Amino acid sequence: MDERTPLAAPLAPIAVSLGDPAGIGPEIIAGAWALRTQEQLPHFFVVGDIAAIRAVWDGPIARIHDPAEAAGMFDTALPCLHIGEAGDVIPGSPSLDGARCAFQSLEVATGLVRAEEGASALVTGPVSKAQLAQAGFTHPGQTEFVAERCGVSRENVVMMLAGPDLRVVPLTIHIPFIDVPAVLTAKLIRNRALATVRGLKRYFGIAQPRLAMAALNPHAGEGGLLGDEEITLIEPVLAALREDGVDITGPHSADGMFNPRARARYDAALCCYHDQALIPIKTLYFDEGVNMTLGLPIVRTSPDHGTAFDIAGRGLANPGAMVAAIRMARDAELCRRAHADLA
Amino acid sequence: MDERTPLAAPLAPIAVSLGDPAGIGPEIIAGAWALRTQEQLPHFFVVGDIAAIRAVWDGPIARIHDPAEAAGMFDTALPCLHIGEAGDVIPGSPSLDGARCAFQSLEVATGLVRAEEGASALVTGPVSKAQLAQAGFTHPGQTEFVAERCGVSRENVVMMLAGPDLRVVPLTIHIPFIDVPAVLTAKLIRNRALATVRGLKRYFGIAQPRLAMAALNPHAGEGGLLGDEEITLIEPVLAALREDGVDITGPHSADGMFNPRARARYDAALCCYHDQALIPIKTLYFDEGVNMTLGLPIVRTSPDHGTAFDIAGRGLANPGAMVAAIRMARDAELCRRAHADLA
Repeated sequence: MDERTPLAAPLAPIAVSLGDPAGIGPEIIAGAWALRTQEQLPHFFVVGDIAAIRAVWDGPIARIHDPAEAAGMFDTALPCLHIGEAGDVIPGSPSLDGARCAFQSLEVATGLVRAEEGASALVTGPVSKAQLAQAGFTHPGQTEFVAERCGVSRENVVMMLAGPDLRVVPLTIHIPFIDVPAVLTAKLIRNRALATVRGLKRYFGIAQPRLAMAALNPHAGEGGLLGDEEITLIEPVLAALREDGVDITGPHSADGMFNPRARARYDAALCCYHDQALIPIKTLYFDEGVNMTLGLPIVRTSPDHGTAFDIAGRGLANPGAMVAAIRMARDAELCRRAHADLA
Repeated sequence: MDERTPLAAPLAPIAVSLGDPAGIGPEIIAGAWALRTQEQLPHFFVVGDIAAIRAVWDGPIARIHDPAEAAGMFDTALPCLHIGEAGDVIPGSPSLDGARCAFQSLEVATGLVRAEEGASALVTGPVSKAQLAQAGFTHPGQTEFVAERCGVSRENVVMMLAGPDLRVVPLTIHIPFIDVPAVLTAKLIRNRALATVRGLKRYFGIAQPRLAMAALNPHAGEGGLLGDEEITLIEPVLAALREDGVDITGPHSADGMFNPRARARYDAALCCYHDQALIPIKTLYFDEGVNMTLGLPIVRTSPDHGTAFDIAGRGLANPGAMVAAIRMARDAELCRRAHADLA
């Protein structure tokens, strides 16, 4: 930081949406708060029904009416901006009232961050898409909802999964396996590669991001013998990106990209489809993977796991990914500000 | 072991084929021998051109003319059954002479094990398929060659990759991504599942093998929303297998199958395609993954990596996977014999 850059003001607290009240969201948020000192977490507050947290946790909760109150009580109680009524919460048994509460929590938390009303970044708790749909939620997922509320087309946001020493971007996500080759176009690869470069600069402070692109076919197609998308599609796109100054290698055999030595050679791996990206992240970092949305005007992260209805309320849920998501939101927001100051 | 089972005679030494002389085969075989005491390795001998090993290693080599000589000198020198002439070996620069030597080494080593002529199990060093093809090798890979020499149809052998606490079977292997849905038939899933059960009993001594089957589509298709192969193909096959007494779960979301807790629930994961199986194994066990062929009358393993021409002869190659392959061959052969005795 040079002399022209004043020390930044303390960050406003981070807004955490509750997620589905019957899932593990309430207990991992409370669990993260319980680890606040050990994990050196920034101030945060949860947005949702206080009763849903009380149903699974007997620690101190402080009801707040404004995010600005969170900082003063964070040391002694979990600040909760109470909204919605989740009804009778039975962990593991999702309900329509619960889904409505999850929807409202997401909406309010997003709005507070988007409007810069006392919240600096957004962390979203896990929701059930099937449950949300019944509550009138028409978006494919929380990412698309947040993008819309931020006025960004969903084509321009990128999902990045991150663990301690691996970041992956699935270029195609929730589509059938058989549709992947058709959806994986030159335009899509190029746009997401560029968005990833911007995101790595903006949120991670990496001046010259290094990307590595996975092949679609086994052994990277072995010169066309095992498929030709590497030759006809991927190599030309990568060549054009390199001409434009992007540091991108590949296409690499996907199975050789995720060992420790290979991981050290890039800042993010671009993967052709969901499982190619998610298998390595979830194999390595099951309890600490973070999902971060790139391309938004705000920072948004979430733990990279679902509602886990099967273990909810039983004290088995690991808050590690929620801890990591809160910490990454803080770090990314600090980096974004420093970057904006220096720009 | 009960009273009816006499203590087995010591195993005959394991035959290790050299692999491509210009790859890392010679140095990892020598490296494994150097670790023989520390790693408690069984007796083995290498089949190939002595000069190729001397080119990259200055340790003691004992030329043998019969596998029976290996046991007596294994403690003090790497036994080598000299065959073929690899010509001038330049590590990293494969040649036609070298490929011929690799081919001959594989042929002789396989023959010695197949004919029970003093070798108990086969470990194959890494070869280059492109180089072998130039030397008149007409098989897609070493697995198919060994299968043919053992009189087994290549449809009936199964490739299993194994690390310390994960075994995976790719149901389809070296085919283009786009062909996977068509090749993944009910018959193929069923046959390979049954062959895997037999292999786990025979070579690993698992009385009631537990299989877990990966889904083809992300999130296991989410009830048909993200692809229907789970509903139309995989679930019916698994149901039929269960009716026949096979302990098989799934189809599971592939990204959730390879974390430590999930891995503890099965003895082998059946995967729909190459990268789905190879990414987790190579991410977790880059330097110790073993490829084992199930369905043969002999035990055959190999290190789960290639010739690595780029680092050959530079002292960088890690012998870990070769050590693991030799150890697994010994363990599997001992298990096979115990099983045969008890049967």
